[in-house]
Amino acid sequence: MLAIFNDIKAELQMLENELEKTLHDADSLIQEASTHLINAGGKRLRPAFCFLGAKFHNYSPERVMNLAVALELIHMASLVHDDVVDSSVTRRNIPTVKSIWGNKVSSHLGDYLFGQSLKLIATYQNRDIGKTLADTSVKMSEGEIAQLAAVNQMDQTLKNYFYSIKGKTALFISDSCYLGAIACGAPVRTWQSLKKYGNNIGMAFQITDDIMDLVADQKRIGKPVGSDLRQGVITLPVIYALKNSNRKEELGKIISGNDKGIEMIERACEIIISSGGIEYADEIARKYVDKALNEIKYLPDVPAKSTLEQVAEFIKIRNF
Amino acid sequence: MLAIFNDIKAELQMLENELEKTLHDADSLIQEASTHLINAGGKRLRPAFCFLGAKFHNYSPERVMNLAVALELIHMASLVHDDVVDSSVTRRNIPTVKSIWGNKVSSHLGDYLFGQSLKLIATYQNRDIGKTLADTSVKMSEGEIAQLAAVNQMDQTLKNYFYSIKGKTALFISDSCYLGAIACGAPVRTWQSLKKYGNNIGMAFQITDDIMDLVADQKRIGKPVGSDLRQGVITLPVIYALKNSNRKEELGKIISGNDKGIEMIERACEIIISSGGIEYADEIARKYVDKALNEIKYLPDVPAKSTLEQVAEFIKIRNF
Repeated sequence: MLAIFNDIKAELQMLENELEKTLHDADSLIQEASTHLINAGGKRLRPAFCFLGAKFHNYSPERVMNLAVALELIHMASLVHDDVVDSSVTRRNIPTVKSIWGNKVSSHLGDYLFGQSLKLIATYQNRDIGKTLADTSVKMSEGEIAQLAAVNQMDQTLKNYFYSIKGKTALFISDSCYLGAIACGAPVRTWQSLKKYGNNIGMAFQITDDIMDLVADQKRIGKPVGSDLRQGVITLPVIYALKNSNRKEELGKIISGNDKGIEMIERACEIIISSGGIEYADEIARKYVDKALNEIKYLPDVPAKSTLEQVAEFIKIRNF
Repeated sequence: MLAIFNDIKAELQMLENELEKTLHDADSLIQEASTHLINAGGKRLRPAFCFLGAKFHNYSPERVMNLAVALELIHMASLVHDDVVDSSVTRRNIPTVKSIWGNKVSSHLGDYLFGQSLKLIATYQNRDIGKTLADTSVKMSEGEIAQLAAVNQMDQTLKNYFYSIKGKTALFISDSCYLGAIACGAPVRTWQSLKKYGNNIGMAFQITDDIMDLVADQKRIGKPVGSDLRQGVITLPVIYALKNSNRKEELGKIISGNDKGIEMIERACEIIISSGGIEYADEIARKYVDKALNEIKYLPDVPAKSTLEQVAEFIKIRNF
């Protein structure tokens, strides 16, 4: 657990138990693969946002626990489906679930986890929760597919990039921030602030994730540096470098070329870094963080507010 | 459209329009891939069952159209996710969506279609519809994963087989038969008969599908004969032959072996057929059909009842 979440330590512990309980009765292969997923950890960011958002009005853990578990299950499902790899991409970058159980299990296990989340969401009287998550799940897929459609396309625009990351990341983080408040019956003004906070935090989060893919060391992020580049996914620093680097032609050739071995990817990273693309992307991420902070300025001063502020500040510094 | 569905011709035409409308605003890659799926056709069996079930009580097309579209979208989603192939299986038997757009698009497109279905289901006041489909989607994945877990396992029991096909096929067909009735406010006795009818029809449907995979010619079923065998999926006639054929050792060797070329698969089919496995499976399918017919015996004599009876009879004869 991130130290930042000390205030919701008890809730996050309950969440772990509930996650295990949800998957307890499953068949052996499902249980094995999903236990693997639960133990692989993750920051439980979405449930944490859900608890924090809920704390602004009439909070009780029972009101939001099913939702929090559902959010983490949807997140896990999307990770597992992300593990599904095209054979052409498989060779150098094999993700975990797929590498152990194969594409077919990844595909059906994701559906299983998603189905379990639907069962939990169906326990809520308030139909807005289900409707919102249905909308978001469509947009998450649209974001992912938009990203796939843009693979290796050198002329990708900022607009495409922001559209894609909003769909694949920001909307769902936004939902996590405000649906907990809705489940506790918070007033419109409260949940709308949380919704906007979440959207901006989500954008910042994905941009810094994309930065880290280029600059962090493998040990820290748990995957090889440049894995986006290797898959032809063109992120914000890359868009900047393709436009502004004095070695942009060289970079373009690497991205559109077939040789994406370690040496080539390292050279591409170096071009992007020396172009100033990282600072550029970081600047934009910081602007989103500031917008997020601004959105919750007028919310009541409960302890959760200060945690949300710390999360925002944390995103600002996490890449360096 | 199957001639059997003449009575719901208008509804099925409306369904096609609604399917197209649902996917009309999508991004180009999604639209292209899902238009491909819609045009690939399919019998629209699940929406047809939904309309037919709805006709027993207070029917109007508006009450069930969103549900009918959602059912077809869930079915399409499951087909697309089924297209996701492990590299080890890819070589000889490449399904359509995966073969054109790759595993990653298949994975996200399935999620997209599923998400769209959730949006339609969320339009219903009656929460039982969403709850039932959430339950079923979990069980569908469980059925698929159980089947994957049993791949190449020669000691597969009848119990495993029936568990797997109930989850992956029968439950969802059952839902299609009775949720339309629920959406129209049918009394318990009516929708429970339809539910049981659907479950039995679904079992019979999957068993005959498994038979056809062994005996029908490629042109008729649109895929090479023996594709289950090639993937190590052990179906009812195979279970029978592995127990009763006088060439059971030879069959076992082919199934567990690495050479699953055309010649080997043809030899396996021949062993299964000459063992009497087809007649055995057919007999069980017929029993399910009779059970299905029995379940709706006391329903009111509306025209939809006679269509449901014809569908049942049709399943009895479709393999020969």
